[in-house]
Amino acid sequence: MADKLTPRATDYSKWYNELVINADLAEHSAVRGCMVIKPYGFAIWEKMRDALDKMFKDTGHVNAYFPLFVPKSFLEKEEGHAEGFAKECAVVTHYRLKVDPNEKGKLMVDPDSKLEEELIVRPTSEAIIWNTYKGWIQSYRDLPILVNQWANVVRWEMRTRLFLRTAEFLWQEGHTAHATAQEAIGETKKMLDVYAEFAEKWMAMPVIKGSKTESERFAGALDTMCIEALMQDGKALQAGTSHFLGQNFAKAFDVKFTSKEGVLDYVWATSWGVSTRLMGALVMAHSDDQGLRLPPMLAPIQVVIVPIYKGEEQLATIGEKVTPLMQELKSRGISVKFDDDDTKRSGWKFAEYELKGVPVRLAMGPKDLENGTVEIARRDNGTKETVPFEGIADRIQQLMIDIQDNLFAQAMGYREEHITRVDSYEEFKKLLDDKGGFFLAHWDGTKETEERVKDDTKATIRCIPFGMGEEEGVCMVTGKPSKQRVLFARAY
Amino acid sequence: MADKLTPRATDYSKWYNELVINADLAEHSAVRGCMVIKPYGFAIWEKMRDALDKMFKDTGHVNAYFPLFVPKSFLEKEEGHAEGFAKECAVVTHYRLKVDPNEKGKLMVDPDSKLEEELIVRPTSEAIIWNTYKGWIQSYRDLPILVNQWANVVRWEMRTRLFLRTAEFLWQEGHTAHATAQEAIGETKKMLDVYAEFAEKWMAMPVIKGSKTESERFAGALDTMCIEALMQDGKALQAGTSHFLGQNFAKAFDVKFTSKEGVLDYVWATSWGVSTRLMGALVMAHSDDQGLRLPPMLAPIQVVIVPIYKGEEQLATIGEKVTPLMQELKSRGISVKFDDDDTKRSGWKFAEYELKGVPVRLAMGPKDLENGTVEIARRDNGTKETVPFEGIADRIQQLMIDIQDNLFAQAMGYREEHITRVDSYEEFKKLLDDKGGFFLAHWDGTKETEERVKDDTKATIRCIPFGMGEEEGVCMVTGKPSKQRVLFARAY
Repeated sequence: MADKLTPRATDYSKWYNELVINADLAEHSAVRGCMVIKPYGFAIWEKMRDALDKMFKDTGHVNAYFPLFVPKSFLEKEEGHAEGFAKECAVVTHYRLKVDPNEKGKLMVDPDSKLEEELIVRPTSEAIIWNTYKGWIQSYRDLPILVNQWANVVRWEMRTRLFLRTAEFLWQEGHTAHATAQEAIGETKKMLDVYAEFAEKWMAMPVIKGSKTESERFAGALDTMCIEALMQDGKALQAGTSHFLGQNFAKAFDVKFTSKEGVLDYVWATSWGVSTRLMGALVMAHSDDQGLRLPPMLAPIQVVIVPIYKGEEQLATIGEKVTPLMQELKSRGISVKFDDDDTKRSGWKFAEYELKGVPVRLAMGPKDLENGTVEIARRDNGTKETVPFEGIADRIQQLMIDIQDNLFAQAMGYREEHITRVDSYEEFKKLLDDKGGFFLAHWDGTKETEERVKDDTKATIRCIPFGMGEEEGVCMVTGKPSKQRVLFARAY
Repeated sequence: MADKLTPRATDYSKWYNELVINADLAEHSAVRGCMVIKPYGFAIWEKMRDALDKMFKDTGHVNAYFPLFVPKSFLEKEEGHAEGFAKECAVVTHYRLKVDPNEKGKLMVDPDSKLEEELIVRPTSEAIIWNTYKGWIQSYRDLPILVNQWANVVRWEMRTRLFLRTAEFLWQEGHTAHATAQEAIGETKKMLDVYAEFAEKWMAMPVIKGSKTESERFAGALDTMCIEALMQDGKALQAGTSHFLGQNFAKAFDVKFTSKEGVLDYVWATSWGVSTRLMGALVMAHSDDQGLRLPPMLAPIQVVIVPIYKGEEQLATIGEKVTPLMQELKSRGISVKFDDDDTKRSGWKFAEYELKGVPVRLAMGPKDLENGTVEIARRDNGTKETVPFEGIADRIQQLMIDIQDNLFAQAMGYREEHITRVDSYEEFKKLLDDKGGFFLAHWDGTKETEERVKDDTKATIRCIPFGMGEEEGVCMVTGKPSKQRVLFARAY
């Protein structure tokens, strides 16, 4: 373990960077903007992925895999889409290296291997997938298509941060095809609900559901729905999006189907995705100045047992004592690690597992052996108790639930305190600086006002929330009429 | 379902291509050499992946993720490695497109976005990973590192075939670091054993373990071990490789560690991988002229129930009858599909599930309802029986084992018939054409002889097998002394 983390209050951004690196979640690679996801970080991502994958399958989706490369001409077919992604593409132009005749031991791009058409490393897969769906869809009988893909994508970001914004990231992208607009809109909403459920139940992170404004929509979508979470520094983070694509991609790639009634029409589409960005959200939603606080449902190690001992014999006695407990926990599906590493002091271990966010720590020493006790510490609230060893498995199982609930309650408490209704632009600007968080305010529905707020304050409309702020009023900036409050915040 | 497959005896290669496409495993994409893995094919790959992943974790490995891109200069660092992969690389040279000023609606590569150093889309990840390990390893305490990655890789193959040889494919690559050569060699063998166990137990495909000859080694390895399987056309297929890399990559990337005794030394390495090529092996090892024959342990649908009915009412009665059976099968971990699609005839369905390789098919009609029976058909041997419905779950559970075993036994029987000991080059050449399969023959150990056999016959040394053919003799080509027989075959 490295030195102490910079406290959040001192520099939140620095705290985040140090935490991601010190807790062994990820690191910068030698390739500009690309990260290495380290084993501990990847173990958390695997748990997220498996939980989401099960939710997708339970809602009728299947996985498939489409090519990494998108021919340039495919990207051109949907105009808005092309504009949205052209500026941040990794472009493959050649398919061979050769020995550099002028420099021994060096390789050079073989100019004879220039591709006739450049290939784009997928920034997202609508283009390549809709070109494929053209071959899969003729009739209403071929619909719906409910496909998901787990993949890596590349967007050439200039300013990158581990997990939050990287040139390459891992994600899943669902791409569905439907016979009617209504069904596609239903799918868009359904998957937004799946994301919200995942964020709240698994990540213990409350989210607000809504639709993006037109200017914040996905390139090529008619409607982009999103879930927005609040980080501890009062900034919002978009944690997932679900797009209703209308018939845009079907038209761009000429994908038609014959309906039951024999009418030929274009297919309706959705796409939806979440990415390794969720790792950043997980870190920032819960962690503290001592390190990660992981919700038990996503913690790679849920319980760690640290022996306090002098000499081999004491260690062996403690090991024997905890072996049946470990078996019992494993049989209940609780992951547990016994850290008998002799090269580290127990104080070092305590700090290390605090940093790594392990939800429950047990410590057992000679006194505990005498008294039939064990010390149990909660990572979420820092409490420590010495309790009877007898019945400890039940207590731990209950703690898994309690800690998960407590992290959610804390995050929800913070968000409730930081969601403010404002009616004047002056107040908005003041509270944005002084308090941060979400703001529910009236907006006149124009791009100009949205842009002005962004220029003035760096805050954006995170979404037009569902089931929140639905009342008439006047725009806080222009005084023009507004049908409902929208959700403003500064955001990641 | 499409038309009948070309029989294997008529054109094995055509049969394979038709089967992969008709059974909905994969298809060619619009991107040269890249495939789309369709949901049914991907579901099989997921089962393979999950089984392998568990075996890796059970042997102490963890997953991580490294960048897609490898800077050109990294590839140059290990000379043999560079030579091996330079000729088949996708090269990223630019990071932006822009609107083409000369052609409305078209995009062009922005010449201002040229990268200072070209990036190679990883053909394998030794270079980027060893550059990363440099930061992870200082002392013997940091060893071993036992990391695996599931990823896509790109090798610009000119002649591609679905699953067997594609420009992009999915795979796993293990990359481990050790303090001693002995430990690294142990790891290399251990993972070869894992692959062999997976191939035989899960894929029902017998394999022969051995080491590659020097000329067939992985670029940068000191020893490449492999498992070799035999396809039904008498050609061999390399199904997995495990490499002992010595200190080559540690030297190329300057990765040293301090031993317990305080001595500074380079780290010892292994890498090992299997890919979506295994899908091709699975198809070719077992399938017949009617379609796939999937081993139950990898079949996405293990049991299909086809109702034979006239009218809604009969269908509903059959549905009611089989619902408890389906629940019972699911509770035993057996996947089952009830195909009540009203738009397809039952004959069509029978052929479809035969094509898709579903191990067990139940058919239930009005007579069965009267008699309390059900028709049960095995995909592996084509037998059909009408049996009592009572107790059918037990029978199915046993069939899962029997079919898995039978497919292995058939493949093993074929291989045993097609592994021939030969002592004369004339006989070798004759039998290679007339019979095919593996040949155990003496070889003088020289590259020249190996090359000559390849030029004369297109057969290669698949491996120097472990525990097979270890007897002295004379080379079948040159008459020079040989310490053991090696395994020859024509191969995929």
